Amino acid sequence: MKEANRLKIDVWRESIDRRMLAWIDSQEPASLYEPMRYAVTAGGKKLRPLLLLLFGEAVGSDPETLFDAAAAIELVHDFSLVHDDIMDHDSLRRGRPTVHAQWDESIAILAGDCLLVYAFRVLSSVPSPHAIAAVQRFAEDIIGVCEGQAYDKAFENRDSVAIKEYTNMIGLKTGRLFALCCELGVLLGQGTPEEQKQARQYGLQLGFAFQVQDDLLDLVGKQEILGKDVGSDLKEGKKTFLILHALENGTPELCRQLYAFLHQKNLDERDIQQVIGLLTETGTLQQTKKVIADALTKARAALEVFRLTPARGILSEVLELVEERQA
Amino acid sequence: MKEANRLKIDVWRESIDRRMLAWIDSQEPASLYEPMRYAVTAGGKKLRPLLLLLFGEAVGSDPETLFDAAAAIELVHDFSLVHDDIMDHDSLRRGRPTVHAQWDESIAILAGDCLLVYAFRVLSSVPSPHAIAAVQRFAEDIIGVCEGQAYDKAFENRDSVAIKEYTNMIGLKTGRLFALCCELGVLLGQGTPEEQKQARQYGLQLGFAFQVQDDLLDLVGKQEILGKDVGSDLKEGKKTFLILHALENGTPELCRQLYAFLHQKNLDERDIQQVIGLLTETGTLQQTKKVIADALTKARAALEVFRLTPARGILSEVLELVEERQA
Repeated sequence: MKEANRLKIDVWRESIDRRMLAWIDSQEPASLYEPMRYAVTAGGKKLRPLLLLLFGEAVGSDPETLFDAAAAIELVHDFSLVHDDIMDHDSLRRGRPTVHAQWDESIAILAGDCLLVYAFRVLSSVPSPHAIAAVQRFAEDIIGVCEGQAYDKAFENRDSVAIKEYTNMIGLKTGRLFALCCELGVLLGQGTPEEQKQARQYGLQLGFAFQVQDDLLDLVGKQEILGKDVGSDLKEGKKTFLILHALENGTPELCRQLYAFLHQKNLDERDIQQVIGLLTETGTLQQTKKVIADALTKARAALEVFRLTPARGILSEVLELVEERQA
Repeated sequence: MKEANRLKIDVWRESIDRRMLAWIDSQEPASLYEPMRYAVTAGGKKLRPLLLLLFGEAVGSDPETLFDAAAAIELVHDFSLVHDDIMDHDSLRRGRPTVHAQWDESIAILAGDCLLVYAFRVLSSVPSPHAIAAVQRFAEDIIGVCEGQAYDKAFENRDSVAIKEYTNMIGLKTGRLFALCCELGVLLGQGTPEEQKQARQYGLQLGFAFQVQDDLLDLVGKQEILGKDVGSDLKEGKKTFLILHALENGTPELCRQLYAFLHQKNLDERDIQQVIGLLTETGTLQQTKKVIADALTKARAALEVFRLTPARGILSEVLELVEERQA
């Protein structure tokens, strides 16, 4: 990414942070606002709110008018992380204790609830003739995210999940929030209905590619960049896109071997290499890369309806960054 | 209450139920929508949405146009019960297992989240020029409810709570949602700003009276009507309005005795009668009744700005019902 663009993005990130903190700056009750502020100051890429700002700029809007909507998006993202971490019993997030680990579950439930309500409060305050439409779309897509999370939890208790079910789940859990960000940028930026539709398509495809690539990088990512063990999904027995693809396309004997690895505790480096061998045999690694590339191609095509602006340029670069990312 | 009014209220209750279920009628994922439907079909008085409909009618609006807003209010109330039950480790609600007891905590967190988001979805769909103002007020007051819940949980871990802190807490946790219902009825029913202000006042005072009376009835209610043991708050060591009043107004010796009962396990009928004796000594029972009556008087005064309609009549009767209730 060009240096000037990188600087702009950094300034935007800081503005989003400041805007979120300005909304939740109450001192009392400290037992509620301290964990809320903790949750929103954990860093992170801020990819979702940045997409909203970029699509707003792409349709000719001043990003300054969109920072509240961007903050609302990040508040929802943070809400979902706080509650997901409770459900997944995760005690670390971005190198710090999760909210329920730092305080307790009750506080984490309540802090998450309140972040979600603040997101609606912030979004509904946006001075735009489209504010009510934005709130409607916001609610619809967050319902989709909840549905995706419900499928994800339900899949944990099932032995087999069809790849179609899995892609539907990540389309809801990850895709819908990405689609929402992109669409809101156009909607509040007063773009055309066609631009709105294409922005949504870009977000859905990008979110999908992003999630499948997460699954891929867990197995083939470089450990030093990833900051976590290679194969950690596999060690937890998670049904990722790769595993499900292999189970759907492998011979009965190969599936039997794969299930054995999934149920085995304490997989070592050699086991993981063997799994990668099996996934190569089924064509899974190649097919996964193709699925990611196809989604990114669709996302790129969705940009064609937008005028050639620096913002469109950055949105295009984002796709390259995702395609090339190693971690 | 007059028979005709009672019949009208019963019909409204059914309409609210039907409207809620119509919004959350998705079949998949069943792991999400089944607990959501379970949570909203537990019965209950529907007092909050009924207040919204009554205030709407009091300013000349057709209740038919307000059922969605009323359903949104009840969805929020149900969301808060589902999450509060997790935080309070309660396994029974209205005679049935709570959502987290029937399924598990993860599902209850997610079902509560989704009910909350549906509330915003339903409210934002109301075809009214005031829809966005309604969403803003909705979010602000639900934030108040979250703050009230945070204080309530924080008080559990404190040995002393000032009565002023306690009344502030119930003003947030109970009063704000009541105020919201009443105000939304006027706002969406296109009443005047003065009517909006007075409706809010009615709700705040009614909610306050309702909560303090809950505390009172726990000690002096008739067991067969209450459907639970008399003194159950006391047995759990809860700091109710009555306990805090007595601690603030009793002699050091009386406070010592009261603390002893609060920390004692397995209180019997005789202990409870002794506590009632202490609360009589400090003038607490009398003062509590006065506080409730004063709040209801303020609520009654707030009705004066409204024209004399059957709806205003029912809102007035509601205050009498609260004053006279035995359980």
